[in-house]
Order: sequence, then C-alpha cells, then structure tokens
Amino acid sequence: MSLDAVKALTFDVFGTVVDWRGSIAREAESVLAPKGYALDWAAFADAWRARYQPAMQEIRSGARPFAKLDILHRENLDATLPEFGVSGLTEAELEHLNRAWHRLTPWPDAPEGLRRLKQKYIIATQSNGNVALMVNMAKAGGLPWDVILGAEVCGAYKPMPQAYLRAAELLDLPPEQCMMTAAHNDDLKAAARTGFRTAFVARPTEKGPNQTIDLVADPSIDIAASSFIELADKLGCP
Amino acid sequence: MSLDAVKALTFDVFGTVVDWRGSIAREAESVLAPKGYALDWAAFADAWRARYQPAMQEIRSGARPFAKLDILHRENLDATLPEFGVSGLTEAELEHLNRAWHRLTPWPDAPEGLRRLKQKYIIATQSNGNVALMVNMAKAGGLPWDVILGAEVCGAYKPMPQAYLRAAELLDLPPEQCMMTAAHNDDLKAAARTGFRTAFVARPTEKGPNQTIDLVADPSIDIAASSFIELADKLGCP
Repeated sequence: MSLDAVKALTFDVFGTVVDWRGSIAREAESVLAPKGYALDWAAFADAWRARYQPAMQEIRSGARPFAKLDILHRENLDATLPEFGVSGLTEAELEHLNRAWHRLTPWPDAPEGLRRLKQKYIIATQSNGNVALMVNMAKAGGLPWDVILGAEVCGAYKPMPQAYLRAAELLDLPPEQCMMTAAHNDDLKAAARTGFRTAFVARPTEKGPNQTIDLVADPSIDIAASSFIELADKLGCP
Repeated sequence: MSLDAVKALTFDVFGTVVDWRGSIAREAESVLAPKGYALDWAAFADAWRARYQPAMQEIRSGARPFAKLDILHRENLDATLPEFGVSGLTEAELEHLNRAWHRLTPWPDAPEGLRRLKQKYIIATQSNGNVALMVNMAKAGGLPWDVILGAEVCGAYKPMPQAYLRAAELLDLPPEQCMMTAAHNDDLKAAARTGFRTAFVARPTEKGPNQTIDLVADPSIDIAASSFIELADKLGCP
C-alpha cells in the first residue's frame, strides 16, 4: 500500500514534538535555583524522566489500574527530589514544577511543520501524556492539533497495541490509513505491528549530547525526515 | 463565583455551532434528487433527527451498551428512508448520506467567534457526536477546536451528569471553571446541575421557521448572546 492512502498522522509528543529535557532542566532551575540549589539541571531532568517507563510498566503489566501521566509524573518527582537533596517545597511549588510537563517547549520546526501537515492530514496527538497536559502544552506552544488522542483517551499506554488501535478506531480509519510519527524506533515498530504506517523524525539530541539510540530510522520505517518541515516537504504538503 | 474563573468553554455542536437541518436537507437532496425523488427535504431532515433522542435514550437507560452516534445515525437513516418511500440506495450511497453529519455547515458567525474565544479560553466540543464526526466536521468547516471531547470520549450521552463531569476531569478543571455553551436550555441546565457555568447562544431557526422552544435563555443561565461574535464581545475576547 502506498502512502497515498494515509489520512491521519498521529504523533508521539515527548521528544518528537517538544524538547522535554531542555524544558524540564530550565523549569527545575527556575524553581530551585532561587532557593539556593545548584544542581546539574539536565541530570535532574534525566533522573525524573528515568522513572517514566517503569511507572507506566506497572500499569501496562496490569499490576496497577490506569492512572494518568500527571499522577505518575508527580509520584516520580516526589521520588527524584530527595535523590538530589531537595526538600521543603510547598505543595503549590511541587504542583507548579510537576506541571512543567504542560509547558514543554516545541522544537523550533514543530509549529510550522504541523501547520503545513494539517493542510493535508488530520493531525492527532498519540502521546502517553494526558489530555489536559496535551491541551495546555498546545495552547502554550502553538501546536495546532485537530484532536487530542493518546493514553488517557485510549485507556492504554504505548507501546500496548490497544493504544494505537483505539486511536484509529476513534478516527474511524483503518490502521493502514494512519501514520505514527515519532523520533523513537520502538514506538514506530509497535505501531507498525498494528497496521499503522510510520514516519521517523530525527531528534538526535533529545536525550542530550551523548545520545546513542534513535539517531537514524530503522530500515522498516516507511519515511524518515530530519524535521517536521522536511516531513511536510516529503509528504507534498504546501 | 464570577465568570472570571472560567478557563474552558465546552460546546454543544448540533444546532449550536452548525446548522444540521439546512445541511441535512441539502445533502439529502443532492443524493436523492438525481434519482428522481422530490421530497420535502427539510421534513426529511426533521424526521431523521426525530429519531436521535429516542436512540440515545436506549443507551442512557442502560437498555443498550454505548454505541457511537455514527451507528445510531445509520440505524435511524435506514428507518427513515422507507417512511419517505425511498429504496434501492447502494451501501456506498447510504454511507455517504450518513456521513452528511460529518459535513454539517457552521452557522456564519461560528468560525470567527470560535477563533476569538480560543484566544482566551480552551475551546472543546462537548457534543453527542463521535470523535471522527467532530474531527471531519471541524476540518471541513474551519472550526479551530483545542480538543474533541463529548460522548464517545466521556462514555455517556448528554444530559447524563457523567458526560459533563468527565469532560471537566479530562481538562483537569473543576466544573466551576468550565462553561457549557449551547443553544438548548435543557443541555445548559443539566450542565449547571454538575457545577458548570452556562452560556446560551440563540439559534432561533435551528429547528425551522416555526421553532417555539429555546428562543431565549432560561433565567438561570449565566450569560446569553445572539451569536458567537456577541459571546466573544461579552467575554472580553479580542
């Protein structure tokens, strides 16, 4: 099947559309530096993020009922702060810091690229982030989504098959008419196993200057680009 | 509580944002007139729509599991056509006609009014229409929703309390920070019972030239306007 049949692009967001590492490092510094802390801010972002997959895995495995990502982020924050010797934040400060994930900064090419892709395709979030997180991020960053899908709406965290299949069902499209777009080969390969087409957008510094994975697309991926602008070019979007 | 606390406007869509009656009458004529049928097209639209509430009531009552509106619309279409002496349509023609609900035309003030309201508020669909219906309608009509909520995402048809409460929960807002916006007093009163604030936008010809209900806002409604433009003015949207 050619890519001509694709009607909707579904997007991974953390790392693919927005720079979580740089954003979280800046947000942590803005909250903690005025209190006299001088951490390795990027290391703090990495440590907080390192608890992300294990937290979701508890839910994927069935050991824990579904809980939205805001809740997991907060639990992970509460566990990460003591590792860096941080204590004594007020509840309001903790909530503000936790909601830094609602304010992540888009990669520079993302808003314009999405506006172009939207001219030809339905553009949907297909993120593990919850609905409010995605809506607030889109308002802050100018991300013109047609529809917010993802874990909270689909009731499953990627890479569970249900996360992709339910998104296609909500769009009333067969999976073959949906294209998962991500900077992560594992996400794309999981989507492909459910019938989705796949687009890789390289984000070689997402995880920092020494990133070793996801530098290039797996050969099984349908289309690869270095930015959303290039993806729009390759897909013939005006 | 003042309206200053409102962060999100949630919208009824059929009749409030789009002209279902005129649109369905035109779509039915475009499919059936070339086949030699000369119906009262508005009466056909009214008859199809008359089966809408009873079909949802079966689900609200628990007599039938949740089914999305595309399915109910199709069942209702199949029941309505023989009443007008129409038969012999192909499956493709029936599906095209059923998906007329995905192509309903916005009232003239809706796209501009929504663009203005979006500058200040999260704007969300809170319709009994399903996700694909809302997404396709928005693409066709230029409706700049931030997020598609409504029956399929919330798992309940309005005016069930869960339909409103789940929308607020997904937005991570208390109901008091959400304002239901509709041309229908019953929808607004049901939303208000769950804690929502309410905005009435008059659509005095939605149901045709002899409409007798919903001509003015119930006194309990928080704010009333004659168009989305006037609503944007009253809410101080630039």
